[in-house]
Formats: sequence, C-alpha cells, structure tokens
Amino acid sequence: MAINRTATPLIDAPRGLAGVVVTETEIGDVRGREGFYHYRQYSAVELARTRGFEDVWHLLVHGTLPDAERRAAFLAEIAALRRLPEEVRAALPAIAAASRVSGPLSGLRTALSLLGSARRLRPVYDIDADRRCADTVAVCAAVPTLLTALYRLGQGLDPVEPREDLPYAANYLYMLNGEEPDPRRARAVEQYLISTIDHGFNASTFTARVIASTGADVAACLTGAVGALSGPLHGGAPSRALDTLDAIGTPDRIDPWIRERVLAGERIMGFGHAIYRTEDPRSRMLREIALGFGGPRVDLAVEVERRVEVILAELKPGRELHINVEFYAGVVMELCGLPREMFTPTFAAARVVGWSANILEQAADSKIIRPVARYVGPQPPVPVPAAL
Amino acid sequence: MAINRTATPLIDAPRGLAGVVVTETEIGDVRGREGFYHYRQYSAVELARTRGFEDVWHLLVHGTLPDAERRAAFLAEIAALRRLPEEVRAALPAIAAASRVSGPLSGLRTALSLLGSARRLRPVYDIDADRRCADTVAVCAAVPTLLTALYRLGQGLDPVEPREDLPYAANYLYMLNGEEPDPRRARAVEQYLISTIDHGFNASTFTARVIASTGADVAACLTGAVGALSGPLHGGAPSRALDTLDAIGTPDRIDPWIRERVLAGERIMGFGHAIYRTEDPRSRMLREIALGFGGPRVDLAVEVERRVEVILAELKPGRELHINVEFYAGVVMELCGLPREMFTPTFAAARVVGWSANILEQAADSKIIRPVARYVGPQPPVPVPAAL
Repeated sequence: MAINRTATPLIDAPRGLAGVVVTETEIGDVRGREGFYHYRQYSAVELARTRGFEDVWHLLVHGTLPDAERRAAFLAEIAALRRLPEEVRAALPAIAAASRVSGPLSGLRTALSLLGSARRLRPVYDIDADRRCADTVAVCAAVPTLLTALYRLGQGLDPVEPREDLPYAANYLYMLNGEEPDPRRARAVEQYLISTIDHGFNASTFTARVIASTGADVAACLTGAVGALSGPLHGGAPSRALDTLDAIGTPDRIDPWIRERVLAGERIMGFGHAIYRTEDPRSRMLREIALGFGGPRVDLAVEVERRVEVILAELKPGRELHINVEFYAGVVMELCGLPREMFTPTFAAARVVGWSANILEQAADSKIIRPVARYVGPQPPVPVPAAL
Repeated sequence: MAINRTATPLIDAPRGLAGVVVTETEIGDVRGREGFYHYRQYSAVELARTRGFEDVWHLLVHGTLPDAERRAAFLAEIAALRRLPEEVRAALPAIAAASRVSGPLSGLRTALSLLGSARRLRPVYDIDADRRCADTVAVCAAVPTLLTALYRLGQGLDPVEPREDLPYAANYLYMLNGEEPDPRRARAVEQYLISTIDHGFNASTFTARVIASTGADVAACLTGAVGALSGPLHGGAPSRALDTLDAIGTPDRIDPWIRERVLAGERIMGFGHAIYRTEDPRSRMLREIALGFGGPRVDLAVEVERRVEVILAELKPGRELHINVEFYAGVVMELCGLPREMFTPTFAAARVVGWSANILEQAADSKIIRPVARYVGPQPPVPVPAAL
C-alpha cells in the first residue's frame, strides 16, 4: 500500500522506525549515557524530590511551574473533575466484570473511552489550545477514580468517592483502601508518580501522537495509548521485579539463585534497561525512598541488587547490569500497600499526564502522521475466480 | 526525547513521516495514477462485484478466497460470534447515553474495547497466528451488533438480536431497522462494505499496527484505530457529500450554486481526492449501483457531477476535479435507508476487517514501532525553583 501522496521519493526507514526523528519536542528528553532525564528544562528527579504531583502536571501541560495562585486554581480544577459522570458510574460494574480476566488496564481502556464520550470531548482540531488542555485535565483527573472503582468492584467492594481536599496521590490511596493514607506513604507514591510521568519517546506516547495528528479527541488519543501500554513489548510492569524477590525468598538463597540464572543465560526480571548505560536515576531515588521505610523486604532487595553486580563481575566480567526502574518501583509500591495488580495501572495514572503533554504538542502541529507501506505481494490484477 | 536506543545515527524524516516506508505488506495497494486498488492479488472492485463480504473478509485475514467448505465454516464461525457477552449487553445503555453528543464512533470505541475485555483477548505476542486471527474475527463479527444496538438505544428503541442465517450486510440492516431488508438494498450495502475494507496505508491502519507492534491484544489495536478514524483529518465521512446535494436542492440551482463556490475558491464536499489522479474506481462502481436504483436524488447527483466538470473546464481550465468515494457512497447509503449519522460507523464496520489484516501482518513481525523525537526546548538542567 505504498501510496505516495506527496509525490516525494519514498524513504526506506530502519525496521520499527528505529532512529527516525518523527517530531521535535519541548516536553523532555532522556540522556542515557549520563543517567539523566528531564521534564522541560528541569531534572525530573529533582522535581520529584521537591514538588507535588500537581505542580509537575502543570509544568507538563501548561509549560511552567505554577505560582501559588495558579496552583490553587489548578488544584480546584482537578478536584472538581474527580467525580464521575453518572453514565460512567453506571457502566463501571459491567466494565469491572468484563475485565476480570483481561485485567485492569483493559478496564481502564474502556472506562477512559467512556469518560471521554460522557465529557463530550470534541476533536482537538475543532477547539483552541486552552480547551484542549482542559480536556486533558478532565480525563486525567478522573483516572484514579476510574482505576480504584474498577479495582474495588472487582473485589466485590463499593467504590469510594473521591475527596476534593487531598492531593492526587493521597486521594488515589484513599479511594483504593477507603482510609486516609499516612503522609509518608502518600508522599512516596507521589514521588514515584512524578518520576514516571514521562520518559522519552515510547510506543504509547507515539500512539497518542499519531491519533492526535488526525485531530481526534483527547480520549481517543489516551485510549489508544493505554492500549499500546498494555503490550508486553512496551514494558512498564513493575510487578515482574517483585517476582524475582519472591522467587529468591530469603537472603541465604540469593547467591545460588542468581548464579543459576546467570550461568543459564536467563534474564533476571528487574535488571537491565535499554536506555541507561549507567544507573537509572529513577532507581536511585526509589532506592532511597525504600531505605527510608526499611524492613526485611528492603534489606533483601538491596542485597539482591548488590549480589547481582558482584556475581556478574565474577562470572561475566565486563558486563554491567543495573537494576531498572521496575525493581525499586515494585518495592516502594508494595511498601505503600498497593496490590500488585495495581502496579501497572498506577504507572498509567501518572503516564496519562505525559501522554497529555504530547497530545497537546502534537495538536498544535496540525500535520497528520501517515507513513507508507510497500506492497510486496503477488502482482495484481489476477482475475477473481468464480465462487465455489 | 531523542532516545537513540540502537546507537544508529538519527534520520530526519519529512514532517508527518510522509513518504517514509514503515513496513512491507501483502495486504493490498492503491495505484493512484491508474485509478486501481487491490486486496491481495485481486482488484477490490472486481471482488465487490462478484463476491460476498465474508469471502473478501476471509481473503483479507486468511490470505485466500474460501472454497465452499471453508466458506461454510467461516460463516458459522462469524454467525455464532454476533451475539454479545452479557457484560457488554449490560453496559450498552450507559455507553449509548454517554455518546449521545460525541457520536456513534465514540460509542463504538468504548464498546469494542469492552467486548475485547469480555472476550478475554490475550496479547498478540502471547498467542499463535490461528488464535490471533480468531480474535480479530471475534471482535469484527460483533461490530454490526454493537453499532446497531447503540444506534437503537440512542433512539429509545430496544436493540434487535442478530440473525445467524443472514449474511453480514443483510444482518446489519436487519438489526438496524428490525425488518429483513430487500435483497437489492442488502447487496448494495454489501458491495459498498467490500469496497471500503481497505484502501492503502492511512492513519487508522498505521495506529492499529503501532499498537499491535507492542504485542497488545486485538481489541487494543482496533480501539485505537477507531479513535484515529474519528479524527477530522482522517477523512471517511460520506455524509458530508450529501450536504452538497442538500444545499443545492433542485436541478435548476446546480449551476449558480457551483459557480459561486468555484469562483469563491471554496471546497465542494464530495469532490477531490488526494490519491487518485483519475476517476476513483470506487465511485464508478457506486454510481452504477445508484443508477440501478434511479430516482430524483440519483438524477440530481449525476447532474451535479456532470455540471461540476463542465463548469470547472470553463472557469478553471486544466483543473480536473473528480468526485471522491464519499459522493456516491452517501447517495447509495441513503437509498438503502441508512440514517446519515450511521454512514461513518458503517464505513468502520467494513474497515475493521482491513485493520484486522494489518494487525495480523504486524503481529507476525514482532518488532516494536518506535521512532524518536528531538528535544528542542531550553537546555536542562535549570535548578527547580522553590515552590511559591
């Protein structure tokens, strides 16, 4: 289907468009060699250490950190949008029932799409930049409400109504468990959420931008991105790293377990990242948070990390293998009382903000993203045989 | 966010990836200069003239036209999948209510996503090719049921249960109106549906393939594609062409109306196509079908088409402007009793089969589609200012 609409010569790209620059961006970047990533002009980790989720959200979608007045207005805007429209609420039990096997991301995909319809979102090319931004906020603000309601319905519990007075992360934990979280846990989850809002150009971000480039509404873009995130090649499944800790179980089993895997050439979940050649800056922050909590699980995690490096140096000298973000993200979420099946949905609850920033940037471009394909099948036209 | 994962040099692509070959395909192609397009090795229009929808569906997703035995098995497989799972049925009234303003494509987006969850679809990379194909059929078979149920609920009517004994198009019209369509109308809609299953590499097809490349399930891919289709830049809105006929009204008003538009340099909806430099082969077939029905509306359409060419030759010599597929597609769907708001959803009811073929082809590749972005914002790190 190589349609050359523009009569420009066709360009053969590397498989999977690897290395092909599809857009310029002012949202952020990852510097793999330096172990550094940023949102706008600020270090993402520094933002996570010093700011609240809503401040960084404002930075991503509005382009600037808010002052006190803007923050108050933004918090009020978000808080009011946490409650679900009645049609969405009415459909949630059926969505929860349908996604019992396929999982919470598939439930979120449906619920986000439905919310977009109920909020009467319009195509991004039919509205101005302010309205587009408000549309992204309207959807993102309700994501914790959707996720926690679907989770609780799946557990046979009633959803918990959102609180307007709590920050994003604290309200999320409150709706999940039905009780106000202790401030340290809420802050730990908040820092995790901030650190995972955006991280370079990945397949879900690209999906959101392709859909936005057609001018479709914000919910269409976010729904597609959630779909891409659910793919096993996308990554972002912090629960897998805990499987490693579970499999090891106790400190005395660390060495034999790791040696066996390394000698067999097997992958150790929670280790290795395609981007960073040095320590993942998110891991460093999440390790510190975990150490602040302490306890045997954290001790085990730290020891596993240390022993993997020692054993690798011995068995495969020259091969460096750092923990990836999933490792301590899983540990921190477990410490904060998040059930394992909610780890990836929690990731999504932050990443929707990063997708939103990308949708807004793409919508300002107004050029459809439409590459071509080259037909390599049998040469047509072959006469259609008579039906048998 | 220019992450160069592969350490290959970055490649600057034209805006919107225009002309960039992202994949090879054996599904089909469009030859704009010749006014020809094909599915596999067969002329798409010849298939529409000589075959039933299910035969062409089989060709797209299985790669071959079915013999009698395969056809019978495929028809039985499809017919059984028309009925909706109970969780989906339960949620449809809320989905219909939520999408009353945003429209039937936004309702379809939600319903398809929900159906995928209820069918417990698994990531395409976790299942074999036969299972993947069955998953696409399971979703596509239910699209007419979803669309007609959402439409009728929106009208305050009860959904009509699917019939297993009717072909795809006839069953679609039956569920829409609650009565069996006359065979000529059912065949006209069937031919339209066949002609619109696929048509080159467009943004919704590309969206489906990007999501499939992450390994996500078939419903995630199709939901994203529906979202992209809903974008105003995507095209595929046959109701717009009827607006032209409505605005003209009667044959005596054709000339002044067209002259005014042409002299003002305004676009005439239903005319002009980015791909074909000659007559659109779909238009030729749909015109013939319309002429078979006859009547004043068809006479008006034919006369408008003729006069646009004559007036253009006079006022803008050298500028050829052919009708596009939307023009007679709209006329035919109107003749067959489809309400105007169902024109684009009807288009989607065929295009899901084309997306499916593309998802299956992409899933066989197992390479994630992930281009890069180049960061062009202010240079980081700028210290994060203290919160105000």
